[in-house]
Amino acid sequence: MAGRVTPVLLCGGSGTRLWPLSTDSSPKQLLALTGPETMLQLTAARVPPGDLFAEPLVVAAAALADSVEGQLASRATLILEPSARNTAPAAALAALTAEPGDLLLVMPSDHLIADVAAFHAAVAEGVKLAERDMLVVFGVPPTRAETGYGYIKRGAPLGDRAFAAERFVEKPERKTAEAWLRQGGYDWNAGIFLFRAGAFLDALATHAPEVLAAARDALAAGTRAGGRRLPDADAFARSPSISIDYAVMEKAERIAVVPVEMGWSDIGSWAALYDVSAIDESGNALSAGTLAIDSTGCLLRSTGPRVVAIGVENLVVIATGDSVLVVPRDQSQRVREAVERIAAEPKSDD
Amino acid sequence: MAGRVTPVLLCGGSGTRLWPLSTDSSPKQLLALTGPETMLQLTAARVPPGDLFAEPLVVAAAALADSVEGQLASRATLILEPSARNTAPAAALAALTAEPGDLLLVMPSDHLIADVAAFHAAVAEGVKLAERDMLVVFGVPPTRAETGYGYIKRGAPLGDRAFAAERFVEKPERKTAEAWLRQGGYDWNAGIFLFRAGAFLDALATHAPEVLAAARDALAAGTRAGGRRLPDADAFARSPSISIDYAVMEKAERIAVVPVEMGWSDIGSWAALYDVSAIDESGNALSAGTLAIDSTGCLLRSTGPRVVAIGVENLVVIATGDSVLVVPRDQSQRVREAVERIAAEPKSDD
Repeated sequence: MAGRVTPVLLCGGSGTRLWPLSTDSSPKQLLALTGPETMLQLTAARVPPGDLFAEPLVVAAAALADSVEGQLASRATLILEPSARNTAPAAALAALTAEPGDLLLVMPSDHLIADVAAFHAAVAEGVKLAERDMLVVFGVPPTRAETGYGYIKRGAPLGDRAFAAERFVEKPERKTAEAWLRQGGYDWNAGIFLFRAGAFLDALATHAPEVLAAARDALAAGTRAGGRRLPDADAFARSPSISIDYAVMEKAERIAVVPVEMGWSDIGSWAALYDVSAIDESGNALSAGTLAIDSTGCLLRSTGPRVVAIGVENLVVIATGDSVLVVPRDQSQRVREAVERIAAEPKSDD
Repeated sequence: MAGRVTPVLLCGGSGTRLWPLSTDSSPKQLLALTGPETMLQLTAARVPPGDLFAEPLVVAAAALADSVEGQLASRATLILEPSARNTAPAAALAALTAEPGDLLLVMPSDHLIADVAAFHAAVAEGVKLAERDMLVVFGVPPTRAETGYGYIKRGAPLGDRAFAAERFVEKPERKTAEAWLRQGGYDWNAGIFLFRAGAFLDALATHAPEVLAAARDALAAGTRAGGRRLPDADAFARSPSISIDYAVMEKAERIAVVPVEMGWSDIGSWAALYDVSAIDESGNALSAGTLAIDSTGCLLRSTGPRVVAIGVENLVVIATGDSVLVVPRDQSQRVREAVERIAAEPKSDD
């Protein structure tokens, strides 16, 4: 597969930021949020096997194996995480499964990228750098003073469209984010990486050897079943739980950032989903089974009961057969408060 | 049953003002809204057989017969309306079933009366007038400039606590309602009446003979089954659909009004239910299966999915397994817009 890029779809998330639709057993990547296809399906469709991409590796939570396989029509290799250890160990499993020279495009499976052509162009740009054994991260030029993402500071230019990554910075304060937005030169860290498998493993060996050892041991002691690889649970559990950013990117040399405006969203809240949804003439984003009367700025979704909103503004209403969430759009990140409160309830409660 | 009053519980309503909880098959009178007992059960419990009251007559929509009987433990006589013709024909059925000298207390079965002692005292006062063959209506002194009710203007005093009814007036304009509230002498028409069966039938014969004829024919051609009386459908359908007020009260002589402050509410909207509900320290009225986080002034109810509201104010959220309603409390009377919109939808719609 000389020159082709192997997509590594990280499918281990168990987020509840889109509760009550997303749950541990039905995380965001497995949900159809923006159309008939799920986020995982959209992600896979974005990197179709062909001239640019090879067949993908999918690293998924073991509990989601059947769901993931059912959603992917292709012959993806499925690597099943016995436990959730964040992205660095997951990427290590993929890198160890690939050949050292393989180019790996490591990406979350629950993000939206509206401009796929721009994304592909950025990947092609990244390939040039990764082939020089650089670790590439894709950056999204900020469009607002977002405090919920990490940022990457651009350093010296590397060709026309890339930069040395001068610094990775965690979620900033509001004033800092505003300053960066004004002055430019900072990009959101979208969590999408491109590197040779060998280069990433080398960096792990240097900066996070416990991660590498645990992943290697887990694969060595693991099993295979059809297209599935099942790393050993005990060995894998010895890895620290750590992200690619913390384990490698914030420490390694030879990191490049490729900024790309590609209509990216992590759909990290109901408000973010509203922002990427088709909005009707009343300013509402309505899914089937919902009705808005004299209402505006609302996101209404249901997988269960019919939802009717009358005379409300900028409200999120999400219904399933089990639960109904009602929250102002600009407070929709507070859904975790509900999840925490419910998790803390006695089980016999009604 | 000399001197005792026979309660006539009108149980034919099919209101949807409390949609989605109230529906045609589950109207307000059959719902438990203020506690474990249904409105019908509360109404029956308010007029228990004993010194003051005889066993009740219940006039109910035929389709609700089993539900009504299931909710009433007592040996009530059930008169089943073959079709909905409003309150005058329903009361006529009851009056024809009773003896002419019987005192009938005709009342809706979906209203709330918090101060039962005051109600009983008013009934005792009304009995004195009804025994003189007057038609008595109970009035509720207004506490706000309500435009949703009819009013009764007080005329000359009849003893300490009653007045001749000078005039019945339909739902007024806002300014009129405000003026009446200021000047006094007007009471809300709560739709509760007390009269001898014979006096009411005489008034019907004079002012609404078609109603009387249809009810008489329907009973004559009808059947009995256990404690149920089943008037003939064709005969009953020949009655005009008309209220007691229109048919008799607005036209007859010898009408008395007994004003009584008794914590009355017709619970005619979700806002009205909030007003009579137990309010927690955050200002919310919450039923089981609901959770309010950083919210105030809300009415949350569910008979189905768990409802969680975060960061909202003065909102009504009502959930059943079929439907979820979200509406500001001060717009909750707009629920009928939703009901109309849904009724107008093609059936295959989703």
